[in-house]
Amino acid sequence: MLEKLREEVCKANKLLPHYGLVTFTWGNVSAIDREKKLFVIKPSGVDYEDLTPENMVIVNLEGEVVEGDYNPSSDTPTHMELYKAFPEVGGIVHTHSTWATSWAQAGRSIPCYGTTHADYFYGEIPCVRNLTKEEIDEAYELNTGILIAEYFKNKDYVAMPGVLCKNHGPFAWGKDPFEAVHNAVVLEEVAKMATRTEMINPEAKPAPKVLQDKHYYRKHGANAYYGQIHKD
Amino acid sequence: MLEKLREEVCKANKLLPHYGLVTFTWGNVSAIDREKKLFVIKPSGVDYEDLTPENMVIVNLEGEVVEGDYNPSSDTPTHMELYKAFPEVGGIVHTHSTWATSWAQAGRSIPCYGTTHADYFYGEIPCVRNLTKEEIDEAYELNTGILIAEYFKNKDYVAMPGVLCKNHGPFAWGKDPFEAVHNAVVLEEVAKMATRTEMINPEAKPAPKVLQDKHYYRKHGANAYYGQIHKD
Amino acid sequence: MLEKLREEVCKANKLLPHYGLVTFTWGNVSAIDREKKLFVIKPSGVDYEDLTPENMVIVNLEGEVVEGDYNPSSDTPTHMELYKAFPEVGGIVHTHSTWATSWAQAGRSIPCYGTTHADYFYGEIPCVRNLTKEEIDEAYELNTGILIAEYFKNKDYVAMPGVLCKNHGPFAWGKDPFEAVHNAVVLEEVAKMATRTEMINPEAKPAPKVLQDKHYYRKHGANAYYGQIHKD
Amino acid sequence: MLEKLREEVCKANKLLPHYGLVTFTWGNVSAIDREKKLFVIKPSGVDYEDLTPENMVIVNLEGEVVEGDYNPSSDTPTHMELYKAFPEVGGIVHTHSTWATSWAQAGRSIPCYGTTHADYFYGEIPCVRNLTKEEIDEAYELNTGILIAEYFKNKDYVAMPGVLCKNHGPFAWGKDPFEAVHNAVVLEEVAKMATRTEMINPEAKPAPKVLQDKHYYRKHGANAYYGQIHKD
Repeated sequence: MLEKLREEVCKANKLLPHYGLVTFTWGNVSAIDREKKLFVIKPSGVDYEDLTPENMVIVNLEGEVVEGDYNPSSDTPTHMELYKAFPEVGGIVHTHSTWATSWAQAGRSIPCYGTTHADYFYGEIPCVRNLTKEEIDEAYELNTGILIAEYFKNKDYVAMPGVLCKNHGPFAWGKDPFEAVHNAVVLEEVAKMATRTEMINPEAKPAPKVLQDKHYYRKHGANAYYGQIHKD
Repeated sequence: MLEKLREEVCKANKLLPHYGLVTFTWGNVSAIDREKKLFVIKPSGVDYEDLTPENMVIVNLEGEVVEGDYNPSSDTPTHMELYKAFPEVGGIVHTHSTWATSWAQAGRSIPCYGTTHADYFYGEIPCVRNLTKEEIDEAYELNTGILIAEYFKNKDYVAMPGVLCKNHGPFAWGKDPFEAVHNAVVLEEVAKMATRTEMINPEAKPAPKVLQDKHYYRKHGANAYYGQIHKD
Repeated sequence: MLEKLREEVCKANKLLPHYGLVTFTWGNVSAIDREKKLFVIKPSGVDYEDLTPENMVIVNLEGEVVEGDYNPSSDTPTHMELYKAFPEVGGIVHTHSTWATSWAQAGRSIPCYGTTHADYFYGEIPCVRNLTKEEIDEAYELNTGILIAEYFKNKDYVAMPGVLCKNHGPFAWGKDPFEAVHNAVVLEEVAKMATRTEMINPEAKPAPKVLQDKHYYRKHGANAYYGQIHKD
Repeated sequence: MLEKLREEVCKANKLLPHYGLVTFTWGNVSAIDREKKLFVIKPSGVDYEDLTPENMVIVNLEGEVVEGDYNPSSDTPTHMELYKAFPEVGGIVHTHSTWATSWAQAGRSIPCYGTTHADYFYGEIPCVRNLTKEEIDEAYELNTGILIAEYFKNKDYVAMPGVLCKNHGPFAWGKDPFEAVHNAVVLEEVAKMATRTEMINPEAKPAPKVLQDKHYYRKHGANAYYGQIHKD
């Protein structure tokens, strides 16, 4: 079942070590088949080099394993909630990538200091609060997803394809698992440069709004002119 | 047309990932044929590994594509303005390399803290201002080039082969595309060491002018004695 | 004698350069056979690429070489004391890995800033004091082990599988030499992220205790549910 | 002439990029034949991959090229002065390695924060002053060597096999070119960890003298017991 999606999710997971986003097994990618209402996700605690399309796990939107011999990632309920909340999202990635995680641990949203950031993320990348004791005890991973979904209610999750969870790490998403990984790489790079920007100038200010707009909209939307294909 | 220059520009673009100056497609190199008044530039949004001499794009000094099946880099108008303003320049490179971009985001010029810097850049590497809303709305990339050109009016752009654009990133240049890339690598290294110099000593002062002179002129000009060939 | 353990210790030592934890010969791994009361350790000052199961050194719990043509690591008495004090430990590793050593040089314990840390180390990773002149003169390496053992008296060394020695560097341990190396990699990563967390936010606070508990216990103990096998 | 030494110097120069100590051609290694009073040094501005035993340059202690088709490194007079001042030194290396150069640019000596430093360098690694305008104008590279030699007059240059030149970069030395490169690697690592130590704890103090003594003398001198051979 879902052979093509299994292959894509397997390949996208293997991109995490390729791009230096993970140590050991600290990250996972999933992708959804919107028609079948099923998503494919990395098995928990398995090394990236041992991943095959066959050992990916298929889960439904109630969080039940539909096919697969392995336990799905322990973060599966978070992915599930995000798929429910973000209908245009096709792929989700979670990592503990070093720089983005350091911002999450610092409990700060990442200001938009330049065009690299503005090319992909429209505005500051938010850091959402810790869960309460009650939320953790009740259903930690599920409530992590609900918290993110609540934050984005009435916000444009397509123009802000990532978030930091306080004292934990980043999630990123995209129209498919490869765009999700792409955005996770950008998030890490942007987090690194924001840290250094503040080292170089502790009084640094975000890029002017008009510059942020220019860069975001030259890559996204009806008037985009970056790259070879002008329609998103 | 311009087969040799296409090959050189293709090769110089592939040096960007080789030297770790780019993530994804975030950088571009061009080179000019001064007799024909045409320059060759990377196609927009194409991966470095997919670049061939054939898919390079040839542009004239009015910014029109003369030959090529792809859109040229979105930064093409900036390159064009710099070629017009800097008659001795044969190659130009733009990247979002991490350390140089962090200085650009911090909005600071890079002080000359040592001989590594002085060997290539004579004085502090300038960070030019943001464009105004009017300049961005009118012609963002073109006005970026005009702004840089204005900054260097009556300054020696050969002795200062690079610049930072505030909240954006670096441009560098040279007599050909390879020297431009070489200078972009040095700029990144110098930006990294300047950051660390200030971490180690927040009161650090630029290198004495006499030491800067010594290093710059032992590599450049009539009395140079570094390397195997003494004439520039 | 102890052929299998020699092989494992040899392999685990070679993981140190693989994971970037060592420069030159600055690290060593050992493992113990609890029945025979003998441990196998790296020879002193030998390059990792020259290590073979045959040149590993076998030492008893009095610190005497039982088999081997080489001198054992100069840190052998420290390993010995830890094996005596920590009966559930099967492997020990010492390195001068960059970030953990920087915390040791700074003389600070590493606060638990996030779930990456909490997944492996329960609470802050301690930095133990310098030895006194008398302790150094008497038996430096032995007293280093005794100091660590004293620190952990009445503490849970399984839930805190590592320590920093002030102005020196880290030791880590585990149920076997591979888990010890695994924990040394995590310690280095956690030390790196803690540094950056404080750069980004000098007022950063440790992760809430309830979040630390959640992450530690979802991976460890009777109710663990991370990975494919639920029993530790 | 000096075939074996040519080979060693060629090989030692190639170790500079191997250990990540250089960008482009920014570093050079030499070694001396004390009987013949000749030293072999890298040709100026030649890429490391193009180095062969044949293109090394042989220079006498008056700084004259005795054999070789290339110009010797522009830093040759500095090497020459150090060979004259340091009779037990057999090899010298100069680089612009990032961390050591950042300390040089910051104008600070590197405090001995831990045992990694103490294992190789006995005490703080000195940063010598800038040359005066007169010294630079007269003979820059020669006077650099004289300045270092003066600093070490009545000091133990064997126990402190390296120095930083303010606003420039490090020199290191050893009994042969390989030990010189080894010490340059250690200097870079120590410079990196010292920077991070101060980031983590701006009030960090040097390691206690008794600990520095212990580590230095367990590796050096008559009572050394690190490694397989106990005599230096």
